[in-house]
Amino acid sequence: MSNSVLKVKACTKISELLCSLREKKPLVHHITNYVTANDCANITLAIGASPVMAEDIEEVRDMVELASSLVINIGTLNSRKVEAMLAAGKRANELNIPVILDPVGAGATTFRTKMANKIITEIKLAAIRGNVSEIKTLYGLKSMTKGVDASESLSEEEYGLLEARNIARALAKGLNTVVAVTGSIDIVTDGNILYTVGNGHEMMSRVTGTGCMCTSLMGSYLGVGENKLLAALAGVVSMGIAGEIAYERLNKEYEGSGTLKVNILDAVYNLSEEIILKRGKINEY
Amino acid sequence: MSNSVLKVKACTKISELLCSLREKKPLVHHITNYVTANDCANITLAIGASPVMAEDIEEVRDMVELASSLVINIGTLNSRKVEAMLAAGKRANELNIPVILDPVGAGATTFRTKMANKIITEIKLAAIRGNVSEIKTLYGLKSMTKGVDASESLSEEEYGLLEARNIARALAKGLNTVVAVTGSIDIVTDGNILYTVGNGHEMMSRVTGTGCMCTSLMGSYLGVGENKLLAALAGVVSMGIAGEIAYERLNKEYEGSGTLKVNILDAVYNLSEEIILKRGKINEY
Amino acid sequence: MSNSVLKVKACTKISELLCSLREKKPLVHHITNYVTANDCANITLAIGASPVMAEDIEEVRDMVELASSLVINIGTLNSRKVEAMLAAGKRANELNIPVILDPVGAGATTFRTKMANKIITEIKLAAIRGNVSEIKTLYGLKSMTKGVDASESLSEEEYGLLEARNIARALAKGLNTVVAVTGSIDIVTDGNILYTVGNGHEMMSRVTGTGCMCTSLMGSYLGVGENKLLAALAGVVSMGIAGEIAYERLNKEYEGSGTLKVNILDAVYNLSEEIILKRGKINEY
Repeated sequence: MSNSVLKVKACTKISELLCSLREKKPLVHHITNYVTANDCANITLAIGASPVMAEDIEEVRDMVELASSLVINIGTLNSRKVEAMLAAGKRANELNIPVILDPVGAGATTFRTKMANKIITEIKLAAIRGNVSEIKTLYGLKSMTKGVDASESLSEEEYGLLEARNIARALAKGLNTVVAVTGSIDIVTDGNILYTVGNGHEMMSRVTGTGCMCTSLMGSYLGVGENKLLAALAGVVSMGIAGEIAYERLNKEYEGSGTLKVNILDAVYNLSEEIILKRGKINEY
Repeated sequence: MSNSVLKVKACTKISELLCSLREKKPLVHHITNYVTANDCANITLAIGASPVMAEDIEEVRDMVELASSLVINIGTLNSRKVEAMLAAGKRANELNIPVILDPVGAGATTFRTKMANKIITEIKLAAIRGNVSEIKTLYGLKSMTKGVDASESLSEEEYGLLEARNIARALAKGLNTVVAVTGSIDIVTDGNILYTVGNGHEMMSRVTGTGCMCTSLMGSYLGVGENKLLAALAGVVSMGIAGEIAYERLNKEYEGSGTLKVNILDAVYNLSEEIILKRGKINEY
Repeated sequence: MSNSVLKVKACTKISELLCSLREKKPLVHHITNYVTANDCANITLAIGASPVMAEDIEEVRDMVELASSLVINIGTLNSRKVEAMLAAGKRANELNIPVILDPVGAGATTFRTKMANKIITEIKLAAIRGNVSEIKTLYGLKSMTKGVDASESLSEEEYGLLEARNIARALAKGLNTVVAVTGSIDIVTDGNILYTVGNGHEMMSRVTGTGCMCTSLMGSYLGVGENKLLAALAGVVSMGIAGEIAYERLNKEYEGSGTLKVNILDAVYNLSEEIILKRGKINEY
């Protein structure tokens, strides 16, 4: 199939998944950071799912039983929270409830890297979403990877993208999970199929929590209980499209990052099958 | 008196209370969850009161002494927070400072239900606000209540409303408090008089924390130090009217739940006696 | 030099500092409260810096090593957080990374005052920002200061301003730091030079966290690593100008404090050298 046919196929499937999400209204249990928790809850509601935030070790196992998916986000981490994450994650694994990890800041401190590693070791993850540096950390990279062909003839950006793809694929294979790397070009892979997503706008990086919110969208789609790769892709594409629309709606003369966030939530709320089909920029490799 | 006369009377009293609130600017101490704390602080400021959030056991007793009311919200609960809630609540009771409970998620997990019960047992509450399911949990219901007349001839919605009213009344009487049940039709009762409020819009449920924010408004009105039933009613009516206005102001073509939240805060900020008199949809039973 | 020349000089230097900030994009480590953490992160991004929030004792020392400045904000304080603040602050001192303190609510409870005192005793601060009452508390005042000349002939407001200036100067000298007192007229001083800033709008007090956000802006400017007095002044002026613009852009008929917050972030995002030169209201004493 040609790439444009594949693109339409992927977008059609995402549209259908969005439809199912809005019918099912999955409950998405979050154990997350306090900086972006409100935005994560709001974007989960905007897409049509239902968020719940609970993190005490005494109740996370009970809460996850009610949920359709579990989002683990390690921003503002502490040791009590990690315990709760592990307990909830293990219970979710027993019940076949998909778990998604956002390894916020993995690599920045030893503590955070250790805790992220603990989570990926002890919990079976349906998906992971991070930026390049976080995903590299999970892969255990201290330096640039070897083995990328033709690096001499590539621009630094192309080189970085190829490298990120290889790492994403390897991590996905190694953990038998889906890995999403978000950035100017997003990557979503289960270790075999790899999608790149060209949606989004660089100004999104001027709003805190767009990464966390993307993870919550992926968690919402995962809560529908269908194909994990598609759910992860749907989350990434939805966030990217919302960011684009949010940027386009800005009056650049006087509106800025405050309005952008409001617009992102609005765009997710108004996301439709038509918009996904019209705007989705997906390539399959 | 006819219902429309009663309605005007209630709205007039609420308007007067709003006036007093804006003169007195009561300090509302919150022990609350981190997901919606920012929105609770902002809606407290928007209505004209002053929020303070403090939750360490070492300082909550001191802080509550400075406050005109205490809001206890059990979202993102943990055991240290419960201790602080109990300590603050007991001090508030000693000082006759009204305490309002938002039993977020009571019923969802054993831990949460237990903690909510601990609070209603150990603290004398001026008011409680929850959704039907949370209020049912507090009432100790595992199944549908008996004793509702004419259930055969009622639609499920009517049946549910009647049941919610009975439970609210019984809980209010049992705890000698005011109970507010918010939903498509809100209920506010002290166990004898019962008001229903027809304000609000269903889209409010697509914004996280509209329940918590309603509780903060009730806490703000309670801080004026007058009639508790009226204060609770004022909070519910104010939130409902703000939600309606927020929805009406939306450009439905491209605005959504992000703008709705901003609009809600704006509407509370601009709430006036005239708007309450014009829009309040209150029935007394 | 005449005051208007000085004003232009200060504004020019602030403009240059803004330029440097946007080139350097300093990483600003926050140990802060959960009520306004999201707004603090967003305003840090809006001005062009990069926020990170981490507070576990296990990682704050590592995190601060990566940062260009450290913001310590004692809202929603607890004893574990204080430990982390002290550990991070001491590490920052060793590395010559500027630390700024926001003593939220100092004076309101014994615990909070004690903890604030602990911080100012054990950590060398580059700057402190608070309201008059918090700064007074730090200065150890229980009652009105003596020694202000001509108090008889001053209005209460003038008296208060003079007093605040004296206290700010004395505190800055005593701690060898920069002190900013924000209010209707802001004060910024290193104990010798004292600036007053006439920007801002009283409606900013109807949005939670405008103080915290101002501290984050000061932390962002401090992260550039130049003159501390100028950095503090730049933060205060930027926040004041943003508040003014935010207020001017409001449609007063139906917009309120919800929109004001969004507008503040937008205005910080769009802050330019021209705007600072045109709007900065600075006097030097």
